[in-house]
Amino acid sequence: MAIPVIEAVPNISEGRRTEVLKALSQAVTRVSDVFLLDQSADPSHNRCVLTIVGTANPLLDALLAIYDVASKDIDLRVHRGVHPRLGVVDVVPFVPLHDASMTDCVELARRLARAVAERFAVPVFLYGEAATRPERRALEMIRRGQFEGLTKKMANDVWRPDFGPSVPHPSAGASVVGAREPLIAFNVNLETDDVSAARAIARTIRERDGGLSGVKALGVRLEHRGLVQVSINLTDYETTPLHLVFGTVEREATQRGIGIVDTEIVGLVPMAAMAGVASDVLRLDPLSQNQVLETRLQSLAGPLPYHFGVAK
Amino acid sequence: MAIPVIEAVPNISEGRRTEVLKALSQAVTRVSDVFLLDQSADPSHNRCVLTIVGTANPLLDALLAIYDVASKDIDLRVHRGVHPRLGVVDVVPFVPLHDASMTDCVELARRLARAVAERFAVPVFLYGEAATRPERRALEMIRRGQFEGLTKKMANDVWRPDFGPSVPHPSAGASVVGAREPLIAFNVNLETDDVSAARAIARTIRERDGGLSGVKALGVRLEHRGLVQVSINLTDYETTPLHLVFGTVEREATQRGIGIVDTEIVGLVPMAAMAGVASDVLRLDPLSQNQVLETRLQSLAGPLPYHFGVAK
Repeated sequence: MAIPVIEAVPNISEGRRTEVLKALSQAVTRVSDVFLLDQSADPSHNRCVLTIVGTANPLLDALLAIYDVASKDIDLRVHRGVHPRLGVVDVVPFVPLHDASMTDCVELARRLARAVAERFAVPVFLYGEAATRPERRALEMIRRGQFEGLTKKMANDVWRPDFGPSVPHPSAGASVVGAREPLIAFNVNLETDDVSAARAIARTIRERDGGLSGVKALGVRLEHRGLVQVSINLTDYETTPLHLVFGTVEREATQRGIGIVDTEIVGLVPMAAMAGVASDVLRLDPLSQNQVLETRLQSLAGPLPYHFGVAK
Repeated sequence: MAIPVIEAVPNISEGRRTEVLKALSQAVTRVSDVFLLDQSADPSHNRCVLTIVGTANPLLDALLAIYDVASKDIDLRVHRGVHPRLGVVDVVPFVPLHDASMTDCVELARRLARAVAERFAVPVFLYGEAATRPERRALEMIRRGQFEGLTKKMANDVWRPDFGPSVPHPSAGASVVGAREPLIAFNVNLETDDVSAARAIARTIRERDGGLSGVKALGVRLEHRGLVQVSINLTDYETTPLHLVFGTVEREATQRGIGIVDTEIVGLVPMAAMAGVASDVLRLDPLSQNQVLETRLQSLAGPLPYHFGVAK
């Protein structure tokens, strides 16, 4: 029997206090049969992203433990950060990995949403493939107005949550839970403190404003580094490869006389996206583009060490 | 107890006859507990490269089965190809993968060499980390003069083999067996039929002639495609990343007014080499360079499906 393995990528509104970041990671590592693959935190965004893999039930346990820590230790009324957010656990996407389907992820999103609403009295919106209305498919539509605008937004029946109370939780706000394909969070840091330049470049590249397919982008200021950032979500790296996104940002920056400091990945990136960049740059023929040792090994082995007890 | 997993990359002097290529792959797939990850064949090189992983004893069985097929079906006296060779199974490197050490690979090289000499009456030279003399560390020194020069070469005591008879096998020649770190076989195909251009570019980039660190290169003609190729082995992709090699070949070709048709990987390439290219091109900060999902998963799971019987 195949074991469906799912990835969860909770985005939590804390990127500064190391003791809270530690409590969040420990909430996951204390649960058996889930694996914390990554924790990325940024103080200016005041946000962290955990990447967790496992099967449905242990994942659910780990995520509820995260909600527990976040709702106790974070208060959105005093939270400041450059990234839009409406909850202490702002958004939790589920992504199908090994032997899992999108339907498995949608089902798990509903289970988590119901449990969060019941246990923490937090309103939950379903998004992405789990959305119950077309206008809730896009996360940014749900999040528009942020925590500060949430009471007013939810007063409109259109924004009644899928689960939980019809008003925000006083300190925890609301939460958005859903299912989606893998996504790459890729930030380009610019050698300037002019946030209007980052915003202009973000407008140029994002799909909504006529830019690159599958690209969402914001321009934000990174106070802690004294620079600005084009913060990008790339939802379809096959159509729009990462180096096309980077090259476009670089060209736009150069035209404004601005240099690139560096770039960063938040969370994890699928190997196929990195291999795709390398294949393009190296002009590899199509037959050579799938010649990665680890990919071949992984196709044999499956992703999870459920049988370490036997193997070792 | 950790299970040492080793990769073997036999290079066999057959790249044309599909029935022999099939017999070679079947020789591997018939053996339990070894996994054939790749078979790359080229008709102009008249050579194929198999990538096999497994533990020591099954690997040994699979490789002896390959020697059996090759010594029956290939006759070097009538073999023609642009790639240097001195045996029907020309060279077999062992590479340490998961929980294996270079010492494990050297030991396995010695076991294979002894068995090949005994069973097939083929002289075997040990190379790389398994070499018994400094001048035998480099494969190209052992192979210089090729099959056609082997009788004369072995008449000199300096080229007495490590195992087996002191004269070549009439049809199978000799074989070179050893242990090494991973290596990338990367070929750049040029839009010209002038093999002297490929040779000149190969000279420019190879370490031996003052070029790039860790690069070996040959210029050869690919009759079946009507073009020429710079055929490259890159032994240290951390010092000399793949796109530096490609960029240098491209620049040298451009200076000669020659275009690049495409490039190819022979065998498999470590993920780190592809991720390294992408990281450089994307200007990723150091912390973001190890953010590959599959790499994180693999560090949990180990590479081999020894426990599929339990898992499924």
